[in-house]
Amino acid sequence: MHIRLINPNTSAAMTASIGAAAQRIAAPTTRLTAVNPADGPESIESHFDDAIAAVGVCEEILRGERDGVDAYIIACFGDPGLNAARELTRAPVIGIAQAAFHMASLVSTRFSVVTTLRRTVILAEHLLSQYGCATLCASVRATDIPVLELEHNPSACAAQLIDQAQHARDHDGAGAIVLGCGGMASFAADMQAALGIPVIDGVSAAVKLAEAAVGLGLHTSKHGDLATPLPKSFTGRFAHFSRSA
Amino acid sequence: MHIRLINPNTSAAMTASIGAAAQRIAAPTTRLTAVNPADGPESIESHFDDAIAAVGVCEEILRGERDGVDAYIIACFGDPGLNAARELTRAPVIGIAQAAFHMASLVSTRFSVVTTLRRTVILAEHLLSQYGCATLCASVRATDIPVLELEHNPSACAAQLIDQAQHARDHDGAGAIVLGCGGMASFAADMQAALGIPVIDGVSAAVKLAEAAVGLGLHTSKHGDLATPLPKSFTGRFAHFSRSA
Amino acid sequence: MHIRLINPNTSAAMTASIGAAAQRIAAPTTRLTAVNPADGPESIESHFDDAIAAVGVCEEILRGERDGVDAYIIACFGDPGLNAARELTRAPVIGIAQAAFHMASLVSTRFSVVTTLRRTVILAEHLLSQYGCATLCASVRATDIPVLELEHNPSACAAQLIDQAQHARDHDGAGAIVLGCGGMASFAADMQAALGIPVIDGVSAAVKLAEAAVGLGLHTSKHGDLATPLPKSFTGRFAHFSRSA
Amino acid sequence: MHIRLINPNTSAAMTASIGAAAQRIAAPTTRLTAVNPADGPESIESHFDDAIAAVGVCEEILRGERDGVDAYIIACFGDPGLNAARELTRAPVIGIAQAAFHMASLVSTRFSVVTTLRRTVILAEHLLSQYGCATLCASVRATDIPVLELEHNPSACAAQLIDQAQHARDHDGAGAIVLGCGGMASFAADMQAALGIPVIDGVSAAVKLAEAAVGLGLHTSKHGDLATPLPKSFTGRFAHFSRSA
Amino acid sequence: MHIRLINPNTSAAMTASIGAAAQRIAAPTTRLTAVNPADGPESIESHFDDAIAAVGVCEEILRGERDGVDAYIIACFGDPGLNAARELTRAPVIGIAQAAFHMASLVSTRFSVVTTLRRTVILAEHLLSQYGCATLCASVRATDIPVLELEHNPSACAAQLIDQAQHARDHDGAGAIVLGCGGMASFAADMQAALGIPVIDGVSAAVKLAEAAVGLGLHTSKHGDLATPLPKSFTGRFAHFSRSA
Amino acid sequence: MHIRLINPNTSAAMTASIGAAAQRIAAPTTRLTAVNPADGPESIESHFDDAIAAVGVCEEILRGERDGVDAYIIACFGDPGLNAARELTRAPVIGIAQAAFHMASLVSTRFSVVTTLRRTVILAEHLLSQYGCATLCASVRATDIPVLELEHNPSACAAQLIDQAQHARDHDGAGAIVLGCGGMASFAADMQAALGIPVIDGVSAAVKLAEAAVGLGLHTSKHGDLATPLPKSFTGRFAHFSRSA
Repeated sequence: MHIRLINPNTSAAMTASIGAAAQRIAAPTTRLTAVNPADGPESIESHFDDAIAAVGVCEEILRGERDGVDAYIIACFGDPGLNAARELTRAPVIGIAQAAFHMASLVSTRFSVVTTLRRTVILAEHLLSQYGCATLCASVRATDIPVLELEHNPSACAAQLIDQAQHARDHDGAGAIVLGCGGMASFAADMQAALGIPVIDGVSAAVKLAEAAVGLGLHTSKHGDLATPLPKSFTGRFAHFSRSA
Repeated sequence: MHIRLINPNTSAAMTASIGAAAQRIAAPTTRLTAVNPADGPESIESHFDDAIAAVGVCEEILRGERDGVDAYIIACFGDPGLNAARELTRAPVIGIAQAAFHMASLVSTRFSVVTTLRRTVILAEHLLSQYGCATLCASVRATDIPVLELEHNPSACAAQLIDQAQHARDHDGAGAIVLGCGGMASFAADMQAALGIPVIDGVSAAVKLAEAAVGLGLHTSKHGDLATPLPKSFTGRFAHFSRSA
Repeated sequence: MHIRLINPNTSAAMTASIGAAAQRIAAPTTRLTAVNPADGPESIESHFDDAIAAVGVCEEILRGERDGVDAYIIACFGDPGLNAARELTRAPVIGIAQAAFHMASLVSTRFSVVTTLRRTVILAEHLLSQYGCATLCASVRATDIPVLELEHNPSACAAQLIDQAQHARDHDGAGAIVLGCGGMASFAADMQAALGIPVIDGVSAAVKLAEAAVGLGLHTSKHGDLATPLPKSFTGRFAHFSRSA
Repeated sequence: MHIRLINPNTSAAMTASIGAAAQRIAAPTTRLTAVNPADGPESIESHFDDAIAAVGVCEEILRGERDGVDAYIIACFGDPGLNAARELTRAPVIGIAQAAFHMASLVSTRFSVVTTLRRTVILAEHLLSQYGCATLCASVRATDIPVLELEHNPSACAAQLIDQAQHARDHDGAGAIVLGCGGMASFAADMQAALGIPVIDGVSAAVKLAEAAVGLGLHTSKHGDLATPLPKSFTGRFAHFSRSA
Repeated sequence: MHIRLINPNTSAAMTASIGAAAQRIAAPTTRLTAVNPADGPESIESHFDDAIAAVGVCEEILRGERDGVDAYIIACFGDPGLNAARELTRAPVIGIAQAAFHMASLVSTRFSVVTTLRRTVILAEHLLSQYGCATLCASVRATDIPVLELEHNPSACAAQLIDQAQHARDHDGAGAIVLGCGGMASFAADMQAALGIPVIDGVSAAVKLAEAAVGLGLHTSKHGDLATPLPKSFTGRFAHFSRSA
Repeated sequence: MHIRLINPNTSAAMTASIGAAAQRIAAPTTRLTAVNPADGPESIESHFDDAIAAVGVCEEILRGERDGVDAYIIACFGDPGLNAARELTRAPVIGIAQAAFHMASLVSTRFSVVTTLRRTVILAEHLLSQYGCATLCASVRATDIPVLELEHNPSACAAQLIDQAQHARDHDGAGAIVLGCGGMASFAADMQAALGIPVIDGVSAAVKLAEAAVGLGLHTSKHGDLATPLPKSFTGRFAHFSRSA
């Protein structure tokens, strides 16, 4: 099975590290390819970054269709362009936020999200609400770490993440922790050891859910809002998206 | 006051007709300019169309900032890129769906949405939930009219819209009707006459809410998730979005 | 356009100051008349005060109908008698709480309400829930200032309001503040300057929404629960409400 | 124990019949007195009727306090003035809608409400939401019977009520029926026999809940929003409500 | 009337004390019999304890049917086996959690639950959600007292319960307190005196609601999910549950 | 990896057929063992059956712990005893209803459940609400097929299931179908072919989610409500559950 991991930002270093983490967790029979768009933001920390990154995600889905990909992972916690991407393929498309919420709800009754900038808390709340997980989430806690700091200053970041996660465990009633950024994958193991409760990295969770969906022979529903978009004309820099009926 | 109406699709004909409708309802002291992106889909009927159109909306906001615009209207019922647009300006940004829901809730206890393709029903449901209006909405009814049909075959479209709206009024408990497409503005008056209940066109509603927000001296909050995005590097076709700290 | 502002309490001084604030924000072409019932409580701080004040609101609506009023504002944050008032007229009727919630949601993703007595917090929560705004409200904070104190000791009140609002901004995730009392209008500008985020006064918001609704040619729906009440007999001190079929 | 049943409308005939029904269900040791306000509407079928009736309810609570009443029942399905009434006494105050919802939820997992005019459906929905019962209610069905018809044409009304209730049982998934009007008490027994599922009359339910609350020594909380209103001045026809600190 | 109180745990001492408390509050005409299963846990503090205890509850319902019981009370705050029990009888079955929530909502607008072990907080949250009371509950507070401590060290327990309840009253906005354990009945009076707000013991509340339901002639609905289970074969230690069609 | 599938009913034939279906979908490296309790109901179609079956599920978990099982599946759509089972092991425990809801939400925006007896609809609704999936479910449709009919009369059952699923797809807005019974696994493929949308069998979904959870090294949280139950004494037929501190 061929899983295509799409890092929606353009940081090749992050793509490499996320891809490596994904490869480690993937089944031996899974071929995992990690890519990022040529066009877009180097990190995603706002509604605007998210909106621009969604285009790159769609481009990569269309490229993946030519490569015969079996399932896709959108490896940014905002799940940018998730439903748009699902319209473009019959293959399952898994966002890492949705994946992490699902796995957390299988091993705990309440989980908390530990994320980066405070401004992204509302993005997480919107996803929890859209995915129907709001009542399962005890809290969304922000460290105010910029995403790129995760690479540049990992030990300081780990300490802040553990601090927030402990507060969620001891005061918010969380039985598990969801890491709120694709760039936090490398912290999961140490955090789980330090906290003594499950710590879920969305990238790993998405790999296993993608393998599960393909293993079940499931395809993205082509009935209703996820059906293939009607062919139409696009202009300018998006003219390549045009399709005639 | 200068209000910039952004038609997120690239149909110049629709931009002109929406702009004209907006100008008619605007106050004499309001300068209304209607634009559409150079780049994007000719109509918006899917998550994918919506995602691509969001980029054009952001481009037009940035252009508007150079023009000293006082308030923006996003004239597509999916409110594509609304929160992203709000991050890019201190001026109020009004989506026509949100505007229509608000005005409907001031003149009725329950309203229904009459929209185009059935596949867009879930987009409307997502907006209702995100804006907190879900409990106020009696039903979302689709006519399965493609957006462009509204221009090509208006009389047949009007009949189908009235038919759905009557059902909402008589069986779903709706006291008012929200038109679920920016291209339906021209139908509102006849429908209201035929139905005997308020019929709200989001474009007109957004013009008046934009005038209201500017009149109140309100600006988009720059605290929290709508603050100006952190400056960062964008690559490729989006490199012009790069800003250095 | 003739907008009738109804201060539901019987404090003529408050009526005058609210009316003046409303006049300042109104369009030049708007004729604004401010009234209060002859019969009722001098201030509204309880379910009971609210219930009695609702009668005076209805009386003023009926009087306004004889005066050919185009839109009404109920200038108490509890929106006393709002739906009852709407039944009595085709003109739009705007409550200042609903108006403030709507405008706040156009310029922020989450807002907080800063109100007077703690006992009124639940009244605000009921309105948020009824209007479908509960998920948009980050917190409702009380200062325990009696309403009439706002006039007698403004500087001390302002300090307490700013204190609560800062906590909402810095700890509750509020991007905007809604003032939870019609008598707080005069504090809005200074608070917005002190806090750096939008501060919405419901009276000003209601004036602009009333102008918007009239400008759109919208009337209160007469289909369903807001239809004109069936004519019937009233007795005793309410006999003047009797109407025969 | 002295229970005061307040029929919020001014129909002495309905007060007598409701009072008789209440007396029949009351415990032998319960003294039940049924009253109605001197001032108000002859029936309650709109937000406006409800608002005016709330004043009469409050008047009767204050009169009841002088009579040493142990618990109050508000015998109109809209529960007019319920929270206002609770502020005026330490005695429990039971609304028949809330009472009926509670008893229905003890004998079924889902119940439906069968009410009179369609315009009152939204009043029932507002109560269900405020009382937290919305998810337990399978449907609210209207017969479009005016309240006073229940007395004038009982057999025709019974047939329509049974018809709606059967639909709720067979198609909406209701395991019990709540009668949506204080004037329907006399229909409950026959309907239950015809339908084979519990049919709950709010008046009877409220009598038993009032006896239960008094038997438990419970008083209405005087902490928070139900505390005694602050003493203040009322003017005009409501001057008798004035109290000085 | 014969009310059967079922203590779902096997602590005969607790059964005796709960039964005595229930007898004290019951009407003179009520015959109250208190039992506990022969088989099950000595206390209920987990999902597992709750699941095992549910079997004993069902056994006692079947025994009660042979004794001609008129109503049942399940005297453990988790309401173990409530819906299963309701399927086995036409008599009303009252859980003490549901009973306490109902009575609390009649005398306050918001209540808080004070319970034992922190791990039981989520059980209370699940019940609040299933019964539709979630929005009425200001907070669920745990003392981390093991259930059996309530008997062994009552004065220390009382102090901790009052401490949590005071916090709920002063900071969470609770107007009433619900005791979150059947073993706390004896604390209610002193706590109410100390706190000055209603303190509801579910056992007492259930006795009065059971008397109310029987007095109203209500039976558990036998239409839908609470209908008598289809006869079928059970094996092994549960073979005595087998019934043939 | 060793996955233990627990069929909560005592039908060995169903255990064999479910186990075979599970084995077919399992990874080659997965050892799958299917068991059912010795004690309990032959099928699960009521709250009562569900309550009794939960005990057998717990027994099988304890037996599985001695066998070194890596993950458990509860193969009945009511997920009987799910949280109780999770308390008894660190291994992940997957209910087939929760598994099916999760997989359906990865390939559609709205799904419908097609289940057996109408009386089980509310059980499904309770699970959807507890798992936070209520807003994702377009409808729950019942065929009124008794569970055991699925084996005795498969072709007639398949026709009824497809009929309900078509209605969900064409009228309720469902993009995917969840099969509401563990005994329907064998119908999934044909139904998916007939309907053209994803049809999810919970047993297969649970196998893949169990493999995913184990692959991720996740364990059931032992912090909070899922922690190992406190050791205590059990009596009578449940004495073997006793553990001393």
